[in-house]
Amino acid sequence: MVVVMKNNSTPEQIKSVTKKLEKLGFKTHIIHGTKRIVIGAIGTREDLETMNLERLPGVERIVPIMKPFKLVSREAQETDSIINIKGVNFGGNNITVIAGPCAIESREQLLTAAHMVKKAGAQVLRGGAFKPRTSPYAFQGLEEEGLKLLREASQLTGLVTVTEVIDERSLNMSMDYVDILQIGARNMHNFQLLKVAGQSGKPILLKRGLSATIEEWLMSAEYIMAEGNNKVILCERGIRTFETYTRNTLDLSAVSLVRQLSHLPVIVDPSHSTGNTKLVPPMSLAALAAGANGLIIEMHPDPSTALCDGHQSLTPDELNLLMKRVTRMLEVLSDDSAVEMEDVVNG
Amino acid sequence: MVVVMKNNSTPEQIKSVTKKLEKLGFKTHIIHGTKRIVIGAIGTREDLETMNLERLPGVERIVPIMKPFKLVSREAQETDSIINIKGVNFGGNNITVIAGPCAIESREQLLTAAHMVKKAGAQVLRGGAFKPRTSPYAFQGLEEEGLKLLREASQLTGLVTVTEVIDERSLNMSMDYVDILQIGARNMHNFQLLKVAGQSGKPILLKRGLSATIEEWLMSAEYIMAEGNNKVILCERGIRTFETYTRNTLDLSAVSLVRQLSHLPVIVDPSHSTGNTKLVPPMSLAALAAGANGLIIEMHPDPSTALCDGHQSLTPDELNLLMKRVTRMLEVLSDDSAVEMEDVVNG
Amino acid sequence: MVVVMKNNSTPEQIKSVTKKLEKLGFKTHIIHGTKRIVIGAIGTREDLETMNLERLPGVERIVPIMKPFKLVSREAQETDSIINIKGVNFGGNNITVIAGPCAIESREQLLTAAHMVKKAGAQVLRGGAFKPRTSPYAFQGLEEEGLKLLREASQLTGLVTVTEVIDERSLNMSMDYVDILQIGARNMHNFQLLKVAGQSGKPILLKRGLSATIEEWLMSAEYIMAEGNNKVILCERGIRTFETYTRNTLDLSAVSLVRQLSHLPVIVDPSHSTGNTKLVPPMSLAALAAGANGLIIEMHPDPSTALCDGHQSLTPDELNLLMKRVTRMLEVLSDDSAVEMEDVVNG
Amino acid sequence: MVVVMKNNSTPEQIKSVTKKLEKLGFKTHIIHGTKRIVIGAIGTREDLETMNLERLPGVERIVPIMKPFKLVSREAQETDSIINIKGVNFGGNNITVIAGPCAIESREQLLTAAHMVKKAGAQVLRGGAFKPRTSPYAFQGLEEEGLKLLREASQLTGLVTVTEVIDERSLNMSMDYVDILQIGARNMHNFQLLKVAGQSGKPILLKRGLSATIEEWLMSAEYIMAEGNNKVILCERGIRTFETYTRNTLDLSAVSLVRQLSHLPVIVDPSHSTGNTKLVPPMSLAALAAGANGLIIEMHPDPSTALCDGHQSLTPDELNLLMKRVTRMLEVLSDDSAVEMEDVVNG
Repeated sequence: MVVVMKNNSTPEQIKSVTKKLEKLGFKTHIIHGTKRIVIGAIGTREDLETMNLERLPGVERIVPIMKPFKLVSREAQETDSIINIKGVNFGGNNITVIAGPCAIESREQLLTAAHMVKKAGAQVLRGGAFKPRTSPYAFQGLEEEGLKLLREASQLTGLVTVTEVIDERSLNMSMDYVDILQIGARNMHNFQLLKVAGQSGKPILLKRGLSATIEEWLMSAEYIMAEGNNKVILCERGIRTFETYTRNTLDLSAVSLVRQLSHLPVIVDPSHSTGNTKLVPPMSLAALAAGANGLIIEMHPDPSTALCDGHQSLTPDELNLLMKRVTRMLEVLSDDSAVEMEDVVNG
Repeated sequence: MVVVMKNNSTPEQIKSVTKKLEKLGFKTHIIHGTKRIVIGAIGTREDLETMNLERLPGVERIVPIMKPFKLVSREAQETDSIINIKGVNFGGNNITVIAGPCAIESREQLLTAAHMVKKAGAQVLRGGAFKPRTSPYAFQGLEEEGLKLLREASQLTGLVTVTEVIDERSLNMSMDYVDILQIGARNMHNFQLLKVAGQSGKPILLKRGLSATIEEWLMSAEYIMAEGNNKVILCERGIRTFETYTRNTLDLSAVSLVRQLSHLPVIVDPSHSTGNTKLVPPMSLAALAAGANGLIIEMHPDPSTALCDGHQSLTPDELNLLMKRVTRMLEVLSDDSAVEMEDVVNG
Repeated sequence: MVVVMKNNSTPEQIKSVTKKLEKLGFKTHIIHGTKRIVIGAIGTREDLETMNLERLPGVERIVPIMKPFKLVSREAQETDSIINIKGVNFGGNNITVIAGPCAIESREQLLTAAHMVKKAGAQVLRGGAFKPRTSPYAFQGLEEEGLKLLREASQLTGLVTVTEVIDERSLNMSMDYVDILQIGARNMHNFQLLKVAGQSGKPILLKRGLSATIEEWLMSAEYIMAEGNNKVILCERGIRTFETYTRNTLDLSAVSLVRQLSHLPVIVDPSHSTGNTKLVPPMSLAALAAGANGLIIEMHPDPSTALCDGHQSLTPDELNLLMKRVTRMLEVLSDDSAVEMEDVVNG
Repeated sequence: MVVVMKNNSTPEQIKSVTKKLEKLGFKTHIIHGTKRIVIGAIGTREDLETMNLERLPGVERIVPIMKPFKLVSREAQETDSIINIKGVNFGGNNITVIAGPCAIESREQLLTAAHMVKKAGAQVLRGGAFKPRTSPYAFQGLEEEGLKLLREASQLTGLVTVTEVIDERSLNMSMDYVDILQIGARNMHNFQLLKVAGQSGKPILLKRGLSATIEEWLMSAEYIMAEGNNKVILCERGIRTFETYTRNTLDLSAVSLVRQLSHLPVIVDPSHSTGNTKLVPPMSLAALAAGANGLIIEMHPDPSTALCDGHQSLTPDELNLLMKRVTRMLEVLSDDSAVEMEDVVNG
């Protein structure tokens, strides 16, 4: 960390700051700049929050140097994490597709959806049993009944399953029914839930918050890993910006960057981010080109009757077509690695 | 709601849309525009989410007309809600000040703080027992021990108390110890917690989410009121923008506007929004001038030793001075109502 | 347009509003909603700005229905615009790559760059002669001397050229030297410059403003087309958000959407949007997958000595490798159109 | 500046970076952190842009320490700048109010407006002759005819005048007719215009850009001052955020902060920022409480017929009432300085 002193700070103030830093276990380096004194302090960043150096006389501001995440960082683990769930792998060179309806509405709806997801070639079935809704008057999910249907769909099709949990109760209830627990965008900052998710030992699909920075997103993954659970799959789902023509702004640079900063797999949700079925196919391909390890796509057997998010759900035919295009994209991307290899060898 | 049809939609498509709308209980009006057909549909907005009209052939987009909030709206109740908590009133012409440390750290720290808050003239004591922290490695609060200290501080000073709850467990634990339960910015979209808060019957201080729209904020209040709890105090605490010189961007226009849209009291948190003690006094006065019903201010007996947010905590002396300035501001604001009255009478 | 009346508006107020609308040439439809009166008004949107209906007694708000852009819209022209510049095509199924240094620094630097751009297979050479810089103390460009070098580079290599113009003077000066005039992000709202650009008749590369909505971006293109110049190439270059790990947030959904809303070609600038050379290759591929018609990439013969933006400039080797990957991506994307065709035929 | 090296950087890489820094005239300090090497470099920040240190092998990132603005900074001048224009002062303890119509529409409209502005007690008359409009089809201003009317209005009332200029031509045309030249939000990044404004020697009202950071805003003022023109008045007019219930988000913390960072006067535009006349009075008072040196307010003799922005223009009666409230607020704010004085003396 760097402590920037005010341009009129006194020698006593500088002494007092270095003393406090050293008392806290930091080594200090005083640098006499052209206009002001700057103190370099060597230590670990988490101490920062309890030091309140800005309140010491003469201090102008603190500039942190180190990134705060540890376990999730590429520096902690150089190679990609590969998360194996009943034979389905997330991470590394695998491209994994999750598909299914926003909400589980009925046995017929879910089983039909599951068969279509299977047929299209996706590996994981999604379906919401607990729905966080902006309006208290909207459909809130089938809860345990939905979880049972999800398990049944999995048994019939062999698909791995994922469902969103919204609190400790729904998390506990889901443990025996589903394979992956999703923490939604609105709960990315629900640190209590992150801890319980970490303790559960289950694979966790962690969506980025609506206005979460990349740093905060990785710190939420750090919460889960700090409890000893390494099975974290990150999911970019669009951030909130001033643009209103799309529901959110899908941040694909974040995907590329997080692949560099962290060893964890990152997938992309083109359905919630755009809120527009016409944008789902191009954004799916773009996500893979940007380096995403997979996709999570809303598909409904009959979107126009869906109880939730029908406007952004693909039909089964649209999913089929998209999966074909995904397969082609995979070929070029692996060819592409070949190009890179060849160039490195030759060049 | 207005359904905008594509410019090349067919008469069959239009018929199919109006049929669906009428089946759902809407009355429809077809308007032949210069370039396209528009269908006005009369009904209530919450049905919108489950209708998926965008998926019907020929439909371009849906434009909602009505605001989705009901119970919180000025239309539901014209006069200001006044929330009385042990004799302290929030709302109407009352200006109510909450002050105290970010986190409860020790008996001595809290009792000292409480006496200083009392002496400065604030009516409510804040103190965090459960701390949602971005880093899993940071101090997380004293929990029940902290709540007991808060109750003791209240008994000694007569101050009303508020503490943040972060899940069902901490909410239940806080019921007997504190007077007001705070739902923090990171939990504003935690609908499960909002429901439980509504069922608790306790006064709720509901902070606006980091990137919540005014509409979403009011819908979260609607969640609490929909459970039969009318004692909701809203709190603006800054929103996330591109600006990095301030921690968040305090949105005072939102305060003025919410006072017009809703009957609920709205207070302002100048400490978290700015993250800078030098901005706390001017932003406090600005908040009151903008129409806020009160303030929530971080104060610590010795900010440079605080375990949390010391950099944005006032000292007791700074709080004293601020309270004097608040009192002067109140005089001009009530004088000001006089000006307005006089003008209305004369003009 | 829809005029929403207040819930307590009087019949006289409603009459007065409809009268005003009709006087202005609108046809009106009164719709009696469950809670309030809504007036549908049929006309064209640009009148809106001068009508001030919100100031009429009883009016709550105005909801526009029509999009304000006309000439740039897909409704005005169904087929893609293809802009031919000395044999190089932008738009339709063409993928066109612009590359070169941020700033023209010297004859040697530019000619070296031009040969490398040519060799890598890009079709257009970029190079800044007028540099809009945040700091008045930074390098501001070689001006006319730079333009002459650009023309020379074009004559030697056959590359088409583009340079940014920043006011009427620099635009006029550039007319005889370069093939495409760029309007930068900071000038997207410089309506005076847009008009002059429209009158120039030259192909215009119009970058999206740092915080411009898609609608505003298209309206700026409309300014150019309204002067009779159809040769507009749009360029997405990242928008400003709260995220600080990337310089801007590249908005690829906007690219897909604009391809649907408009007939104009859209290219992507992965260099300025990310500010990070490691993100340039994945974002380039992602842009093409999202439907972009081309790329504009910063390349410098020796980035570590560049006078401007060296940190985001590729080396010639990196550009070469990227162009190989672009070519592979094109194959899959055209294959992909084949998939789609086949599916449409079969299903 | 601080250069953070990668955790696996080699001694040769570190040597090469320090060598380059020293060659560029920096003094360097190597700090051995717990996980990586950090190099402190002492020099001036503007060199940063042309050094491209991120491209040197082993470098992770650059952390600037110094703020880039110089002349506009409080460090360059401790006392408030007071800008005297024909006896009207901006800055220091003065509160100065500018009012008038968005656009000059006719002789009658402007003269009526001017008399009402005078009568209400404001000191400066605003009126647009060159209107930057989002749509090319909207009213664009009376140009020189409007400027003549503005001069006439000034001669009749003694009011100082301000008008927006949008390019070099309109700036030159305005020189003889008006007292203050306004650079609008959309031109804050038009560096060419800023330079010409600096060379003009006229007082400049510099609006903050729609999405300009505080740093960029101050750098634009630096452009004007770097040309030798000290008469810069800053104007906060709302920034673009995700919130759609208000037109922009008025950033009053920026006003307080800029008053601390710079010696230049800062005024606030509550009309454009909110886009809602009901929010203009509370936001005006809040701006003054936040430390603004004045206001710029849209007022139209008959807002419902205004050719531009009528929906956010006050009526003359509303302006009168607001000016009374402003006067009361001034009393409390000067009293308030008294409170502070007294406390400093006693405490």
